[in-house]
Amino acid sequence: MKNRNISSIGEFELIDIIKNQFTNSKDNKNIVVGIGDDSFCFKPGKKNICITKDMLIENVHFKKEWTNPQELGEKSIEVNLSDIAAMGNVNPKYVFIGLGLPPKTSEIFITNLYKGFKKACNKYKIIIAGGDTVRADKITISITITGTSREKVVKRSGANTDNLIGVTNTFGDAGAGVALLYKYGMKHKYNKNERFLIAKQNNPKAKLKEAWKISKHLTSLTDASDGLYISINLLTKDSGKGAEIYMDKIPISPNLKKVFKEDKKQLDFALFGAEDYELVFTVPISKAKILKKLLPQISYIGKINSSNNVKYFYNGKEQRIKYSGYKHF
Amino acid sequence: MKNRNISSIGEFELIDIIKNQFTNSKDNKNIVVGIGDDSFCFKPGKKNICITKDMLIENVHFKKEWTNPQELGEKSIEVNLSDIAAMGNVNPKYVFIGLGLPPKTSEIFITNLYKGFKKACNKYKIIIAGGDTVRADKITISITITGTSREKVVKRSGANTDNLIGVTNTFGDAGAGVALLYKYGMKHKYNKNERFLIAKQNNPKAKLKEAWKISKHLTSLTDASDGLYISINLLTKDSGKGAEIYMDKIPISPNLKKVFKEDKKQLDFALFGAEDYELVFTVPISKAKILKKLLPQISYIGKINSSNNVKYFYNGKEQRIKYSGYKHF
Repeated sequence: MKNRNISSIGEFELIDIIKNQFTNSKDNKNIVVGIGDDSFCFKPGKKNICITKDMLIENVHFKKEWTNPQELGEKSIEVNLSDIAAMGNVNPKYVFIGLGLPPKTSEIFITNLYKGFKKACNKYKIIIAGGDTVRADKITISITITGTSREKVVKRSGANTDNLIGVTNTFGDAGAGVALLYKYGMKHKYNKNERFLIAKQNNPKAKLKEAWKISKHLTSLTDASDGLYISINLLTKDSGKGAEIYMDKIPISPNLKKVFKEDKKQLDFALFGAEDYELVFTVPISKAKILKKLLPQISYIGKINSSNNVKYFYNGKEQRIKYSGYKHF
Repeated sequence: MKNRNISSIGEFELIDIIKNQFTNSKDNKNIVVGIGDDSFCFKPGKKNICITKDMLIENVHFKKEWTNPQELGEKSIEVNLSDIAAMGNVNPKYVFIGLGLPPKTSEIFITNLYKGFKKACNKYKIIIAGGDTVRADKITISITITGTSREKVVKRSGANTDNLIGVTNTFGDAGAGVALLYKYGMKHKYNKNERFLIAKQNNPKAKLKEAWKISKHLTSLTDASDGLYISINLLTKDSGKGAEIYMDKIPISPNLKKVFKEDKKQLDFALFGAEDYELVFTVPISKAKILKKLLPQISYIGKINSSNNVKYFYNGKEQRIKYSGYKHF
């Protein structure tokens, strides 16, 4: 084995290396959704129990200067809940918070961080049930959330040929928000639309209620944490399908359109900008109207086919799309 | 509020600050063991589900130079399983591994780390069910383990007056091992007894089987991750009791006795040295003999009383003990 380092391997090959180390979890009859989906789900009794785990690390996932501790606490819970939402009709129950803190961290910072955890937990009526606090060089937030479900959970892998691909709302706002922060920092005087984009970056909301409303009609489901492009790739790959995406159908907020006027730039943020945390799903054509009634903000942006690739079209013309999103390593 | 930093607050006050942020989890009827015990347990159906979460951070919990990646992987799983063992007769089932990795981390390091995870998981027939991998400055390992139990779990808080305090085996080895590493590093030529102590530091084993054998007789139970002194404090405090500890009854390994010949030094390692991961428990006097038959390596080191303090005796004479263990912040 050549001893490469992980920055040359890249995130997705790294995940493959890790996955290959393990036996197939399909061997275990209690497992409903194995490793690799948004959450892991098992069924020890009548209910599914879903578990998700995510880490946020200072200067990788957030910068202290660009947010405040309460927002950071809320966001940590919301982004993990987004992985619960991505399983369909699952009720989040318990949260476990692992914290790595530099010794110089102030008491006020911790108290406000916990205010944020608590605010988000109260909103969804979930309970902080445990965790641990250790010393670290950089602030490290590791969250585990468990939820229960009486209904069937919705995997990434169920998309069928001719299913429509839908999304719960606009894309690109959070990515544009962080781009502004990178360019101008926090002290810049932003206008209303710019502040909207930054707020979408700093205060994302898990689409739990949306997932509960529509889940029973869906064939596959994920949340967009790393950009729409990656989400579509995951859904099609895990389902063994391909897709056509109509770029002009991807919903873009009026705010994003005002701040970044160029079409191409808006679509770049939508496809490759991370942290929108909207749901991306597939649904049989026959159910498309019902869903739109349940959630009027839904847009259909493409269609599953039996190929093994994803093609992008803009005003009917095929486009060459090259991934230009965030490199994790 | 005075804005102190956490190195001046200390770990236990920090835990209190965090705990105070939350409503009492006793409000929820499904919760069997709330925040603050070794694991959190809830009962969604017929079985208890126990969850524990722990983080290991490079240069805080381990040094890359003092161990190898496979040992590190194994240890990460074992120390978390120790928190499952500390709940009694609980079967660990699923493991979630969050990894923070510097971009320069080599593929061989990751592969060997995972070999260690896998080896420990295979040993206990548990399944790696999920997790995530993110970029970090320092290697960060965040493990969550879930387990199930049909029997009653054993809390820290059940110790009764006149119960005996027992431990599963010798104390101080792991603390002495890390003291050797701090003094001489990894390249020093160690003798057999010294290597034994270092191995106890680098290859701890969760006392799961021991817990399964004796749990139904116990009134309270914890594992010793931060030293025997802290474990006894937690058991008595959570039970609202006090204790007498007979220091000459604390089991010390022949290896530790040979490497550190002074009595006082051995007892310092036993009381304040961390990472022994032995079980510390209380049991009614009537059950003491049965337990000793089930696990002959058990020692009884003290007795619970109705006071609210812990007194230490050495050859019948009361000793003044001052905490001199590891400072987490």
